[in-house]
Amino acid sequence: MEKQLYYEDVAEESRITRLVKQPTTTQLVMWAGASGDYNAIHYDKDYALKRGLPGVIVHGQLAGAFLGQMLTDWAGDKGNLKKLSLSYKGMNFPGEILICKGKIVKKYFEDNQYLITLKIWVENPRSEKTLTGMAVINLPSKNDI
Amino acid sequence: MEKQLYYEDVAEESRITRLVKQPTTTQLVMWAGASGDYNAIHYDKDYALKRGLPGVIVHGQLAGAFLGQMLTDWAGDKGNLKKLSLSYKGMNFPGEILICKGKIVKKYFEDNQYLITLKIWVENPRSEKTLTGMAVINLPSKNDI
Repeated sequence: MEKQLYYEDVAEESRITRLVKQPTTTQLVMWAGASGDYNAIHYDKDYALKRGLPGVIVHGQLAGAFLGQMLTDWAGDKGNLKKLSLSYKGMNFPGEILICKGKIVKKYFEDNQYLITLKIWVENPRSEKTLTGMAVINLPSKNDI
Repeated sequence: MEKQLYYEDVAEESRITRLVKQPTTTQLVMWAGASGDYNAIHYDKDYALKRGLPGVIVHGQLAGAFLGQMLTDWAGDKGNLKKLSLSYKGMNFPGEILICKGKIVKKYFEDNQYLITLKIWVENPRSEKTLTGMAVINLPSKNDI
């Protein structure tokens, strides 16, 4: 059981706990099977090169899933991910580090819920943002304990 | 409903209907997920080259499954594949034609069954046998109609 994060613990403008991933070609093959996305740019190097890519690339939705994992890890068992929107900006490559980051934009009480709006993004090793998005999380409040 | 093959229809030394396949990199990725064999020599070209292979190679068991398909297609709904043994001899590559062939070695009546023993094999486009094996099939007899 991890320590639960509460609404009162977080401040606007602060960063949340980052998540570092290093997807492998094996994980991409597993993701192809799990998601049903069998586009060959994700596993066939010759095909990817012919399509003008520098090599096989990570499925954008897998990088998005990593952002989801960062958010739910951070929010804890009693936090809820209410909304997640993503914009694909660039490529991630298997074998490279992929860093998931998030920043709290706003905290507010609405419809009887304690809500957090965050900017989230993925950075590649060249500090380029390859995936950006917004999320809304509902955290428990110490007022309700 | 296909026409059923009977024990009386086949002769020793004769060839059975061949099956031609051309596995793709996508089929190998699907096979990885279906079989649980995630060895990267079957989808990661760089990894395969580092291991001294000329490129990614077809899973041996997938080629074996093609031989099984050739045999059950040939034996028809009332035929039964009783035994299948395989020896892996060489490599098949995605994108290349792979030809499944079989030859009847012996036909005999034993334990109240009409049995066929076959030599089976896979050939690559250079006529090399990449997979060889033996099979025993039970066919229905016209005596029992």
